Amino acid sequence: MKNSPIGVFDSGVGGLTVLKALMAQLPRERFVYLGDTARLPYGTKSPQTVVRYALQAVRKLTEYRVKCLVLACNTASAVGLPAVSDEVRDVPVIGVIEPGAEAAALASRSGHIAVIATEGTVRGGAYQDAIVRRRSDARVSAVPAPLFVALAEEGLCGGPIAQSVARHYLEPLFDAGAGASSPDTLVLGCTHFPMLADTIRLAAGPDVGIVDSAETTALYVRRTLERENLAARSGEGGLRLLATDAVERFARIGGRFLERPIRPDEVELIDL
Amino acid sequence: MKNSPIGVFDSGVGGLTVLKALMAQLPRERFVYLGDTARLPYGTKSPQTVVRYALQAVRKLTEYRVKCLVLACNTASAVGLPAVSDEVRDVPVIGVIEPGAEAAALASRSGHIAVIATEGTVRGGAYQDAIVRRRSDARVSAVPAPLFVALAEEGLCGGPIAQSVARHYLEPLFDAGAGASSPDTLVLGCTHFPMLADTIRLAAGPDVGIVDSAETTALYVRRTLERENLAARSGEGGLRLLATDAVERFARIGGRFLERPIRPDEVELIDL
Repeated sequence: MKNSPIGVFDSGVGGLTVLKALMAQLPRERFVYLGDTARLPYGTKSPQTVVRYALQAVRKLTEYRVKCLVLACNTASAVGLPAVSDEVRDVPVIGVIEPGAEAAALASRSGHIAVIATEGTVRGGAYQDAIVRRRSDARVSAVPAPLFVALAEEGLCGGPIAQSVARHYLEPLFDAGAGASSPDTLVLGCTHFPMLADTIRLAAGPDVGIVDSAETTALYVRRTLERENLAARSGEGGLRLLATDAVERFARIGGRFLERPIRPDEVELIDL
Repeated sequence: MKNSPIGVFDSGVGGLTVLKALMAQLPRERFVYLGDTARLPYGTKSPQTVVRYALQAVRKLTEYRVKCLVLACNTASAVGLPAVSDEVRDVPVIGVIEPGAEAAALASRSGHIAVIATEGTVRGGAYQDAIVRRRSDARVSAVPAPLFVALAEEGLCGGPIAQSVARHYLEPLFDAGAGASSPDTLVLGCTHFPMLADTIRLAAGPDVGIVDSAETTALYVRRTLERENLAARSGEGGLRLLATDAVERFARIGGRFLERPIRPDEVELIDL
């Protein structure tokens, strides 16, 4: 079991930011990453559809005998974690919401926390619930920021367009005149958003702490593997990439997210 | 047959701009509109996947005994029209590419025509081919403009963000210093783009003619019905809206595209 791979599921390429953080935290581990590129994005779909698609994807990942399953997609984590945990009972299933909420609850001094995410994640209220469960004094302001997804996929992570979009979303959240009532912590509640972290930081201002759920999830996975005695003792790691469509696009855009080139022939086309 | 509805297929809500133009041209006709909201967007999918999804959708529409089928989605038209025409042989099948290409070939004086569209439409080369088939002296510059889709869905059709995105895409196409070599005609090759027509016109400049494939397709459908003796002689029109997911979002965003409010209970949830 220790030598089995870790399964990582995402709706597309965004989860590669989580994979990158996982590979940095766990360099000995092998990973199987599945991006459901035929059906992305999940952020605008109904909860029922997201759950159905997520279950199909994790069933496929269990065929690779994974020792741990990471739902890298925030939307799938927000609405699908209970159903997936029910389906896959024999290995730990880890979503990105709980680690992000934990980090935010710890980092915030004032208890006022902002979350930016997809429409589906915000509407479902999972971050809001997970933060308040950890800290009953918390006040959570969550807003959808869907344009960040399109910007990250197009590689427009800095520059005037990204900056004006960041101001559009963040200025109403971090109104300079609001003083003490302004959030002191901002959760990047979508896997695409770490790509724009510098631009987001600039718009939020220097006093706001940024919680990147990719980083916090990778730490959480490492601790889980250690606690469950599932961590690989040796090995040089390894990566298998699966996508449900458009492998060329997956390679081209995914390379930016993973911060290393991906060749199209590295990506296996699968059907769910 | 004259009293049968017209079927309109799109990957989501974008095709409602085509439906709006159709309803204006053909006020007596009844329409059945199917938006494949569970699987949108088509613009980043492989041609094989787009064809497969389009065939499933048109099979569903034929259950409504449509007398004519409109592929309102540019990407589905660009890669799926032959397969759909093969599948549905007994009624006219009309895509948006040919009418748009026809209008552009007629409108351009210089023969230099710009096309903005999704990645899939540009990569497939359907507009380029269709324009050159009509006008062998044409030179076509086609660029993907995917951020316009996200902006239209979020309702950011004017203002500084939309303007800077429009300059980002259009300035390289319409370089003021290029003089005679600059295109004189711009095709809006995605159903979302008419929502940003004013902003696009501003960025392209006053000398560039804009071809909106929604308008040209509606005219083409009207002529086809008249020619085939299929036009309704009387009636007050009618509209049935079908979506494969997220009817609430369809109603909310679709209302802007159709320029009339849509109630969620007007939208029937179907499975393909």
